[in-house]
Amino acid sequence: MITILPTLGTKASDLDTPCLVVDLELAEKNIRTLQSFGNKKDIKVRPHVKTHKSNYWAKKQIQQGAVGVCAAKISEAESMVYGGIENILIANEVVGTNKIRRLVSLAKQAKISVAVDNHINAKELSNAAKASEAEIQILVDVNTRLNRCGVEPSEAPDLALFVTQLPNIHFKGLMGYEGHIPPKNDGSEPEELTKALDKLEMAYKAVLNCGLKIDIVSAAGTSTYKHTGTRTFVNEIQCGTYIFMDGAYMEESPEFKPALRVISQVMSCRNNTRIISDAGLKSISVDSGMPLPIEKNVHLEKLSEEHATMSVKNNAMFELGSRISLLPMHGDTTINIHDYYFGIRNGTLESIIPISARGKFT
Amino acid sequence: MITILPTLGTKASDLDTPCLVVDLELAEKNIRTLQSFGNKKDIKVRPHVKTHKSNYWAKKQIQQGAVGVCAAKISEAESMVYGGIENILIANEVVGTNKIRRLVSLAKQAKISVAVDNHINAKELSNAAKASEAEIQILVDVNTRLNRCGVEPSEAPDLALFVTQLPNIHFKGLMGYEGHIPPKNDGSEPEELTKALDKLEMAYKAVLNCGLKIDIVSAAGTSTYKHTGTRTFVNEIQCGTYIFMDGAYMEESPEFKPALRVISQVMSCRNNTRIISDAGLKSISVDSGMPLPIEKNVHLEKLSEEHATMSVKNNAMFELGSRISLLPMHGDTTINIHDYYFGIRNGTLESIIPISARGKFT
Repeated sequence: MITILPTLGTKASDLDTPCLVVDLELAEKNIRTLQSFGNKKDIKVRPHVKTHKSNYWAKKQIQQGAVGVCAAKISEAESMVYGGIENILIANEVVGTNKIRRLVSLAKQAKISVAVDNHINAKELSNAAKASEAEIQILVDVNTRLNRCGVEPSEAPDLALFVTQLPNIHFKGLMGYEGHIPPKNDGSEPEELTKALDKLEMAYKAVLNCGLKIDIVSAAGTSTYKHTGTRTFVNEIQCGTYIFMDGAYMEESPEFKPALRVISQVMSCRNNTRIISDAGLKSISVDSGMPLPIEKNVHLEKLSEEHATMSVKNNAMFELGSRISLLPMHGDTTINIHDYYFGIRNGTLESIIPISARGKFT
Repeated sequence: MITILPTLGTKASDLDTPCLVVDLELAEKNIRTLQSFGNKKDIKVRPHVKTHKSNYWAKKQIQQGAVGVCAAKISEAESMVYGGIENILIANEVVGTNKIRRLVSLAKQAKISVAVDNHINAKELSNAAKASEAEIQILVDVNTRLNRCGVEPSEAPDLALFVTQLPNIHFKGLMGYEGHIPPKNDGSEPEELTKALDKLEMAYKAVLNCGLKIDIVSAAGTSTYKHTGTRTFVNEIQCGTYIFMDGAYMEESPEFKPALRVISQVMSCRNNTRIISDAGLKSISVDSGMPLPIEKNVHLEKLSEEHATMSVKNNAMFELGSRISLLPMHGDTTINIHDYYFGIRNGTLESIIPISARGKFT
């Protein structure tokens, strides 16, 4: 199907709308900021690609020092491996014959680790890996707070021991996820985070007590890395959001700058009190809240599928074609709708970056 | 980028998850149901492709008697024209040099109508069409209730007359949109709908009074077509949702059956009180509300990006890999995330239907 792409060098203000733009300088700075933290604390950075869904950005992160990446699904991992990334933790359970077959195929091409929270699943992974002479690294997923996937800390040793007894899969450590806990205003550690990390540490100690070696303990998100990353038993952080910084989190972690926008333009204006721009629910997600207009003097009233209805403040004047940039509250799900980033530097289009893992759900 | 597609004939229960399936029989029946209404009332059916985004479904609708289709954006219209559809109303304003250039190019290849609510825009359309020796049909967009795009009824004659005076663009009639007004339980016409249709009729009469000929008055959505379609001045209805029927509207219009599902499977289960399936915000939209699990004995607690967390009722038993189908509340934005429909008949995969206008925002 036809896709008409702009010429590199086009001014950002001439891009057709709605389009997803990324400020390349800010995103690159965000990558360096997190990596500096990792380098200083001697903790490995393994960014989550479920935010950017692009081997372009994965490579940028690895060039700055990341040890590899996290992916959420086997299809995301496939898009990374075939895009040149060689070290991937699928920070999620991989369940079902077909997905396990794909995991094994991938493990023959790259270093693949996967989260496990179930004995049957571990056995299936082992059987499939053995049949194909593949080797898969295993992290036991620990339920630290979300009550989603993951075993309780007291169950971790049994599952870890079970894994060590199976061929072609290799117990490597533990994974927790506590990345969505909002930081406290005064910079101190939130109580909820302490509890979550204590649960992960309980699992860590229990597994060590069985005499097993733990190479990796992977945890943290953009909101929690500063605390989680200083716990000595954690040695990898898997932040995702920090690269472009969501609108919903930007005040919590001001060391990262929001680098993502959906640019829209005014397609209808009525008496200059109400203007309609051409970005709606089909080009920007609202699951974490309504996007914020960057331009002053407009207030977003509602989003419908293809339209943003805005009221005009302070008698400001807008014409057909005026640009209104919207800051998404949730980058991950907004990026998931688009096929490309338009990479902007100094006001012009420097690169068109394929969102190669877009739509990779399975 | 790699996309692994299943073989036709695969059982629906073996499809990898999450995936978007459509019950072909139900969707085909929905198409026939609306067309029967149109045939009986002698009103033209011009379905909106912003729901299905696919020339496959557009052709099915035209085969059943639709006169053409509506599209929301120039890019959607492009995907239809290059997919073989020859008569398209872009039921929206097309603004800006680049989009108008594309509109003109398309108008040289198919019969294209477009909504207009602004004199400057009409002049630009005319200039561009004239320069390329293209002909564009114009419907004046009337603001019937949404306070989005569209002129007030009293303003319609002036804009219509302005259009008739310009070369290469042709005033053809009026367009209103009142399709989101919920029907009343007793089947009678909601007061809000009467008001909206009265506004459209005011515009209709005012334009007729100027001596202009009106070929087309296009309006209605899935919720309102039964009332709107019986107004004698309306001669085209542009329903979209009816083809697959959203969860959010299904009780309002029981003549159409919900035909769309996202199939997920259980990837983690804890003591059989909490199960996690592999569909989340990245494969199903929530802008019209949380999806409904079709399977009994589960209650959807929360959706995160890649996970649905559900509680189990009545001591039901679920295993890893058990299937949970989710009915989306909003088809349009859920379809907008996926690249294919998996078309199911008699429990097996009959066709893989590309969502050819997915991601066509501009």
